[in-house]
Amino acid sequence: MAEREAGPRPGGRSARVQASVHRAVRALLARMDRAEVTIPLVAAEAGVTPSTIYRRWGELNELLADVAVERLRPDMVPVETGSGRGDLLAWAEQYAEEMSSGLGREMIRDVLAAEGAAGPRRCCCYARQQIAVIADRAATRGEAFPDLDAVLDGVIAPILFRILFDEALGGERVGVLVEGVFAGFGRRA
Amino acid sequence: MAEREAGPRPGGRSARVQASVHRAVRALLARMDRAEVTIPLVAAEAGVTPSTIYRRWGELNELLADVAVERLRPDMVPVETGSGRGDLLAWAEQYAEEMSSGLGREMIRDVLAAEGAAGPRRCCCYARQQIAVIADRAATRGEAFPDLDAVLDGVIAPILFRILFDEALGGERVGVLVEGVFAGFGRRA
Repeated sequence: MAEREAGPRPGGRSARVQASVHRAVRALLARMDRAEVTIPLVAAEAGVTPSTIYRRWGELNELLADVAVERLRPDMVPVETGSGRGDLLAWAEQYAEEMSSGLGREMIRDVLAAEGAAGPRRCCCYARQQIAVIADRAATRGEAFPDLDAVLDGVIAPILFRILFDEALGGERVGVLVEGVFAGFGRRA
Repeated sequence: MAEREAGPRPGGRSARVQASVHRAVRALLARMDRAEVTIPLVAAEAGVTPSTIYRRWGELNELLADVAVERLRPDMVPVETGSGRGDLLAWAEQYAEEMSSGLGREMIRDVLAAEGAAGPRRCCCYARQQIAVIADRAATRGEAFPDLDAVLDGVIAPILFRILFDEALGGERVGVLVEGVFAGFGRRA
């Protein structure tokens, strides 16, 4: 488990197995229903033995969660708009849109279906890192910016809560949430 | 499915079967790990045939979700403290505590594990109804009270988001969230 947390040494055998198994899962998910995916199918697609997968991931839920967390890892820096508020708004609108898509919902579901809190926490960290990039840029420009926890609770939390328990929020409502976090920040400052 | 949404006629055969199967699930969950619970075990405990359960719930995930949603149905009116703000604070602190307990986490997980959005939406409705009770009492006293969506996004969402993706919020932070919703409301009013 410790190895998985830190990530395998890049280019090593372990890293190659992981990349190949992840690729196999994504390929299978692209052409069949998730309920049909099994560890033997993944193994055949990845060219490894099923026991390699069982040894490393334990069960299918864990593997699917691992792939989903990996997919949720941000692959770009937040768009620059010229202000921290603008950056956060642009990022949050895109986040809300991606997470509420069919693929986004499936990823969230897979992440939450695994045992343990490691996967969900990594997702939370990814969002926090992206917001920290925006906050750092704002600081460089000499702008004030709300603290990360206020953004997590005030913007990310409602976006995910509504997707999971209600109806996804539209862009307009996301804008209201961003405004609210900045207003609350101004109030406390 | 329509029958399940509306709930069976109280006292009818269908209602008795549902009550008995739910009771059986709760009894099994109290004495064994959830991973060991199976539909045949539930059927034996409830004194019905497995096919009765398959016909009605389809699969175990759906049955567990149904039981969890039922458990999340509020069984008391929010405590009265003399003010809307106090009522909301007391309710939110209790909600955060219950949801972050072992049983609470298991219920949230079961609700989210089922196919479809009906279960999660019922949970959201339960929270909304409780807040509406608090808002109505505040209105009767002539107090202003924030709108329900602001409370959902500003208080319920962070409580559940942190439980699912991070660390459960303590009572102090819940208080800050309640204050924030009231302050934001005063700002807009």
